[in-house]
Amino acid sequence: MYYHDKRLQYPVRVEKPDPLFARQLQQAIGGIEGEIRVCLQYFFQAWGARGPSTKYRDVLLNTATEEIGHIEMLSTAVALNLEDAPATLQETSAQANPIVGAVMGGERPRHVVEGMLQRHLLSTGLAAAPVNCDGVPFDCSHVYASGNLAGDMFCNVAAEATGRTLAVRLYNSTHDKGMQDMLSFLIARDTMHQQQWLAIIEDLGGLKESLPVPNSFDQSKEAQEFSYMFMGTARDGTPVPPGRYSEGPSIDGKGQFHFKAFEPLGEEPVLGPARPDSGAQKEQMTSPPVTNSKT
Amino acid sequence: MYYHDKRLQYPVRVEKPDPLFARQLQQAIGGIEGEIRVCLQYFFQAWGARGPSTKYRDVLLNTATEEIGHIEMLSTAVALNLEDAPATLQETSAQANPIVGAVMGGERPRHVVEGMLQRHLLSTGLAAAPVNCDGVPFDCSHVYASGNLAGDMFCNVAAEATGRTLAVRLYNSTHDKGMQDMLSFLIARDTMHQQQWLAIIEDLGGLKESLPVPNSFDQSKEAQEFSYMFMGTARDGTPVPPGRYSEGPSIDGKGQFHFKAFEPLGEEPVLGPARPDSGAQKEQMTSPPVTNSKT
Amino acid sequence: MYYHDKRLQYPVRVEKPDPLFARQLQQAIGGIEGEIRVCLQYFFQAWGARGPSTKYRDVLLNTATEEIGHIEMLSTAVALNLEDAPATLQETSAQANPIVGAVMGGERPRHVVEGMLQRHLLSTGLAAAPVNCDGVPFDCSHVYASGNLAGDMFCNVAAEATGRTLAVRLYNSTHDKGMQDMLSFLIARDTMHQQQWLAIIEDLGGLKESLPVPNSFDQSKEAQEFSYMFMGTARDGTPVPPGRYSEGPSIDGKGQFHFKAFEPLGEEPVLGPARPDSGAQKEQMTSPPVTNSKT
Amino acid sequence: MYYHDKRLQYPVRVEKPDPLFARQLQQAIGGIEGEIRVCLQYFFQAWGARGPSTKYRDVLLNTATEEIGHIEMLSTAVALNLEDAPATLQETSAQANPIVGAVMGGERPRHVVEGMLQRHLLSTGLAAAPVNCDGVPFDCSHVYASGNLAGDMFCNVAAEATGRTLAVRLYNSTHDKGMQDMLSFLIARDTMHQQQWLAIIEDLGGLKESLPVPNSFDQSKEAQEFSYMFMGTARDGTPVPPGRYSEGPSIDGKGQFHFKAFEPLGEEPVLGPARPDSGAQKEQMTSPPVTNSKT
Amino acid sequence: MYYHDKRLQYPVRVEKPDPLFARQLQQAIGGIEGEIRVCLQYFFQAWGARGPSTKYRDVLLNTATEEIGHIEMLSTAVALNLEDAPATLQETSAQANPIVGAVMGGERPRHVVEGMLQRHLLSTGLAAAPVNCDGVPFDCSHVYASGNLAGDMFCNVAAEATGRTLAVRLYNSTHDKGMQDMLSFLIARDTMHQQQWLAIIEDLGGLKESLPVPNSFDQSKEAQEFSYMFMGTARDGTPVPPGRYSEGPSIDGKGQFHFKAFEPLGEEPVLGPARPDSGAQKEQMTSPPVTNSKT
Amino acid sequence: MYYHDKRLQYPVRVEKPDPLFARQLQQAIGGIEGEIRVCLQYFFQAWGARGPSTKYRDVLLNTATEEIGHIEMLSTAVALNLEDAPATLQETSAQANPIVGAVMGGERPRHVVEGMLQRHLLSTGLAAAPVNCDGVPFDCSHVYASGNLAGDMFCNVAAEATGRTLAVRLYNSTHDKGMQDMLSFLIARDTMHQQQWLAIIEDLGGLKESLPVPNSFDQSKEAQEFSYMFMGTARDGTPVPPGRYSEGPSIDGKGQFHFKAFEPLGEEPVLGPARPDSGAQKEQMTSPPVTNSKT
Repeated sequence: MYYHDKRLQYPVRVEKPDPLFARQLQQAIGGIEGEIRVCLQYFFQAWGARGPSTKYRDVLLNTATEEIGHIEMLSTAVALNLEDAPATLQETSAQANPIVGAVMGGERPRHVVEGMLQRHLLSTGLAAAPVNCDGVPFDCSHVYASGNLAGDMFCNVAAEATGRTLAVRLYNSTHDKGMQDMLSFLIARDTMHQQQWLAIIEDLGGLKESLPVPNSFDQSKEAQEFSYMFMGTARDGTPVPPGRYSEGPSIDGKGQFHFKAFEPLGEEPVLGPARPDSGAQKEQMTSPPVTNSKT
Repeated sequence: MYYHDKRLQYPVRVEKPDPLFARQLQQAIGGIEGEIRVCLQYFFQAWGARGPSTKYRDVLLNTATEEIGHIEMLSTAVALNLEDAPATLQETSAQANPIVGAVMGGERPRHVVEGMLQRHLLSTGLAAAPVNCDGVPFDCSHVYASGNLAGDMFCNVAAEATGRTLAVRLYNSTHDKGMQDMLSFLIARDTMHQQQWLAIIEDLGGLKESLPVPNSFDQSKEAQEFSYMFMGTARDGTPVPPGRYSEGPSIDGKGQFHFKAFEPLGEEPVLGPARPDSGAQKEQMTSPPVTNSKT
Repeated sequence: MYYHDKRLQYPVRVEKPDPLFARQLQQAIGGIEGEIRVCLQYFFQAWGARGPSTKYRDVLLNTATEEIGHIEMLSTAVALNLEDAPATLQETSAQANPIVGAVMGGERPRHVVEGMLQRHLLSTGLAAAPVNCDGVPFDCSHVYASGNLAGDMFCNVAAEATGRTLAVRLYNSTHDKGMQDMLSFLIARDTMHQQQWLAIIEDLGGLKESLPVPNSFDQSKEAQEFSYMFMGTARDGTPVPPGRYSEGPSIDGKGQFHFKAFEPLGEEPVLGPARPDSGAQKEQMTSPPVTNSKT
Repeated sequence: MYYHDKRLQYPVRVEKPDPLFARQLQQAIGGIEGEIRVCLQYFFQAWGARGPSTKYRDVLLNTATEEIGHIEMLSTAVALNLEDAPATLQETSAQANPIVGAVMGGERPRHVVEGMLQRHLLSTGLAAAPVNCDGVPFDCSHVYASGNLAGDMFCNVAAEATGRTLAVRLYNSTHDKGMQDMLSFLIARDTMHQQQWLAIIEDLGGLKESLPVPNSFDQSKEAQEFSYMFMGTARDGTPVPPGRYSEGPSIDGKGQFHFKAFEPLGEEPVLGPARPDSGAQKEQMTSPPVTNSKT
Repeated sequence: MYYHDKRLQYPVRVEKPDPLFARQLQQAIGGIEGEIRVCLQYFFQAWGARGPSTKYRDVLLNTATEEIGHIEMLSTAVALNLEDAPATLQETSAQANPIVGAVMGGERPRHVVEGMLQRHLLSTGLAAAPVNCDGVPFDCSHVYASGNLAGDMFCNVAAEATGRTLAVRLYNSTHDKGMQDMLSFLIARDTMHQQQWLAIIEDLGGLKESLPVPNSFDQSKEAQEFSYMFMGTARDGTPVPPGRYSEGPSIDGKGQFHFKAFEPLGEEPVLGPARPDSGAQKEQMTSPPVTNSKT
Repeated sequence: MYYHDKRLQYPVRVEKPDPLFARQLQQAIGGIEGEIRVCLQYFFQAWGARGPSTKYRDVLLNTATEEIGHIEMLSTAVALNLEDAPATLQETSAQANPIVGAVMGGERPRHVVEGMLQRHLLSTGLAAAPVNCDGVPFDCSHVYASGNLAGDMFCNVAAEATGRTLAVRLYNSTHDKGMQDMLSFLIARDTMHQQQWLAIIEDLGGLKESLPVPNSFDQSKEAQEFSYMFMGTARDGTPVPPGRYSEGPSIDGKGQFHFKAFEPLGEEPVLGPARPDSGAQKEQMTSPPVTNSKT
């Protein structure tokens, strides 16, 4: 069960409202690198956690709950960037601020309005929405929760790595001290979250123990001559530039990297003819000739 | 530029066609853990690669090109699982095989048809489609390519970890020797791909050098007291179970993990009143009274 | 069955074409508050209507049919906003009008082009599309038709309330007399539609009869101590500000509103270990120890 | 900011796991009538709330926070329906339970597996996902938050009306006493939530004050002869069956309902010819002849 | 403007309700080959039609309006397939019909319920929805309307070709005489629609006049040595099997087909280094060394 | 199996980087008229091809493989349009180029940034993404592969017709000689692809043999009086303007076009009452009266 405190996790101040920055912040709310995604991802991983103890479920629950507060902070930041100042009377601000004029049907400063997320004007009443910076709604297929603990941790590191990259880009896109302060907090939290998910892999014994994911599959059943081979597909057989991925022991310590210019091992596939009444053309329904030479 | 060879990368045989397994294989084609995703992900990372050399672009191009062949193998496997046998005449098979009868309008063996992906019958003419096992089309928002090399490598490890988990589940769902053989190859390749993307991180100096992602942001600008703190959100302040993520040096060697039961540092946010002509209710348009914090 | 008249339901005139307003009008076509949505919503409710008479089916059919004409009006308005004037020769207008120049490859007035829905230039040939103002296509999951008459009426009121709010915002965003005239008609129709769906609830006996939706479920089977209780989730138990929703008789007259700071009634959930061959990590497959407390 | 308690809001017990019911419960998690939707909807309404006091923001925050706990309960219920029993060893249950056998690669009881959401087997490791009962991921475009308080309340009533209808259908689909108990709680909460959002409209003065939404638009600007007219579209002019929606005073008390068989008031629209270099066919680029109305 | 007649365009009778067939019919409603798509596609093409006369706009309007009636027929067919018989009392049918029992909470005939579109039970109250046979909602990105008349006609032929293929597959999937009769009508209409869109291309002068689409682009600006060349991509240069597409005059009569095994004409692309503060890794930010092309 | 050559199929040069043109080029990558779509469409048609020979499978494989190279060229063009020049040091370009300044947090030239696809700045690190020009990700439901050879060829012609129209519009939107050169190549290839898919229909015997699609359905089973009739839906019975589609022999030579103002042939549909426990309102559950006259 969950509880709320009306206060924000960290202060959110906007010195100079900027509707374009409001649009850019949306990526951190409803983008695939954003906070709705990690919030739901950690929750669904927690709610489906299976294992000998509830330890990792607890870790996930704490961080998922933290993330709700991040969505709240960013949504507040979007709303503040979309208004002149929280308690300003509109009559005054309409004169001072061309954006307000735009909303009210005054002669539009087209330049500003054109750069806005249009739905901020038309659909939300100058508030945040669970969409990204180009207006695409967040779609929960991005909630990665596979039931494999190590696999999920890599998904979480990936989410926090793209998340912190986004937060850094947002930090670099604004001069507003309030916004930079908020982002300095969110960037720090992304630092920690990258660390903590990798730490769980260490907690489980590290890369050698955890890899390959899933580590519960008997590797003798896989076609092991291909398990540590870098497959080259250059038309002329040129090898890949040598690197850690093509020579030396594998990361999991169970094999030796090597390169091979690959050639097809299978045949050209030939499917059967289409069946009568299957909705194909008549011409597709005859048997293949013994020698499909005309081809 | 790209070239093809009509032969498959690895043999694809189906001993006993099974339309339910055809449906399950779709997850490996059009699911978020599937091959279209990694194929396009590696291509877009390659095509946007920036850096001092084209080394990693080359690595990505090789593996992206390999993945086209995996989609091809799986699509062939779906088509083969949807027919009785490649060159069998339908009149015969209609009697021998109730599934064929179903397609042709005979008395339907409902049990089999009900379990199929309906579009295999109605939309593809008994062939694969770029959708997942429940029929949801693949959506390219899952192509993660952030322009940050280390972040993208973690995205790739995540993709291959969920991909190999899926392949293992498919392997465990079939008794068909042909399908198990094909999957033993795909599982091996997923093993290698997990390794090679982690190897690139080692190539770049390992976790200490690469983290936090992006490593080009000056960490003195982040709110560092929160960078290695595990934030507790238990209502009653109960700490998280202790683990590698809450004590000891951080993974990047730049901090020390510690736990803190968190309290709000911000205020309750108060947005301004709605503006006239903004489409809100009249009641939302008056200024807030001086004391409304406890309303 | 359906018929058409080539004339529009109401005049559509544009005095001064404005491609940014064309973009904004798209929200009323393909946005979730838009006309495609209500059109299909009323049709699907009508086509699935069950009940003692076809009365409400008839009402729904009339209004659904009306809505096709609204999509037509708005699509015409988009096309008109995207051209200089219906019968103007391009050679002339290209000189007079920088937008036209842009389309024809002249030196682009970037300011104007940047603010356009890019697909208006690239994909539709200067005409409307079934997408919203940020270019997201309408998706029919927004067609609410639950088979419950009262529930559907609330969905319809909701649709018309957000629809009229949008129309008002569009009205306030333009100075074009033709567009304002068209919108004054659409706003009036939204007024009526809000009324008529609420009138059907009155026709059915009003809120007391209709609530809770569905009214066919025996309320003695629900956990009635929670049916009229406002659940407080403030961390420190602070009550919600008192209001009509927390005290006095309930709207359906069947209970008494009251507030309660809630505490968990359930246990911490513990799922079983992951099963062998289920694709989890080995570490997830052992039984939980008797005391999993420290973990 | 938010907090969690590891215990569930209300007990979740499953007497006899049923993977088909697990699938059906997904509709209450990731369906448009489900809990993710209302949770995010109330949060985004709260975070964007503008008005003279924070009263309604507080109400929304309480209920949004409650809803996280509902998603948690349902996700737990899905996981429990997907396993034999929480702490059972798989070797035993594999013999006792054909579903478990299916997961482990034993001879598949196809009947059961065919009816499952395939991703429960292949993608989540026998746990819930943020998708609906047919596997379609939840998409945040369903988070209705318009910035208009009354409009949003109708959206909330609509959500809770379809939500309670769904919960009733789920209740009627199971015989499991544990599941019925959980649903009796959720149904009760949906009852309350329908009431409380309507109570806010009463708090604001009731339907007469609140309608039409938005009530801040000067109705003298709308084309008032159409504001309370039921528009008939029957081809032959047949009136709609008379009812509360076609006669008597309007619900907002500001007009009188009446019926009118409607005729087009506009002209046939004629768009200009396509422009050179606009990518149309040459034939579309000539001016319309003077008389083309009957062409 | 539009009008309705309460009667169906063609009779819809179901002799023996079949919930699996109800599910399959959904593909013809909300699938990409379905009727919502063509209905909206023809409407948007009509509403955006530009040209010397309104002739083709009229043709499109007639057929678009016809298609609304097809959605109506199919939706009615879905509802009828989901009930025992239109006017049967449930008490009786509950005993006679296990499907009804399932809905009412009796012991579920799992076989039948498992094969249903789950939302038919849970979300629509036994009626149609604008989704396909696997439950994916129709998405209006499939409304092709490019503003190029000839291009749109090919899109329409494509839509009707896949549409008729689907209708034939549905016809072959049922023994119900009523359903076959309805489908025999819809198949006939798809025949006509394929014809009529091709007839418009003839009306415009045929393939030679119309091709390549758009015919308004000066072909001297295209790289004409590649305009009628079949590009071979076989790794070893094997030519494509000879056919009409690789030899002889082109379809538009403006060139001569010929085959060429293609070799790259461009260089290996080298993008610049990542910029400071662009969120990339530090390692990506140095200039490329002078010789790294073969790395 | 597939191979790559690091060189591009055709040169890609950008003389003057233009971030707005980068955005527009995205439509040719991830738009429905774009290259990802045709690439996957041809691959899935090839991989599911059934018929007497593998001839058309070969043709499809060649062209699908060619299309990968087109995505690569366009992605390279996007990246080049997003940078000042490949090897320029940022310190210099930051002064020379306001766009670079924008990325680095300098005073933003808002005009330029506002017109960009925001994700080019925030999510891709100045590179291409598989999304369209308004930022909507490509969704694989647009991969048309029906298993009917002739139907698929019409889908391919449609794709190439809209594709070439788009390429022409892009050509007309830029003055960059490098970009025009690249587009002149892509336009030429679209010319060829339109031709070659139509040539396959000729190879199969032409329109008379191929139509109606599918040609394997016995036309005596369709309701043939409607197979070549143009259905008029004008409210007043006005015929459609006469044309090739309403008179003369049909395109397939099997019928005669004629016009008919259509009248409903079916009845008003009456569905049964809602069933108890089906989640409808009580009022919907009574039997219809003998005369539903009150309606």
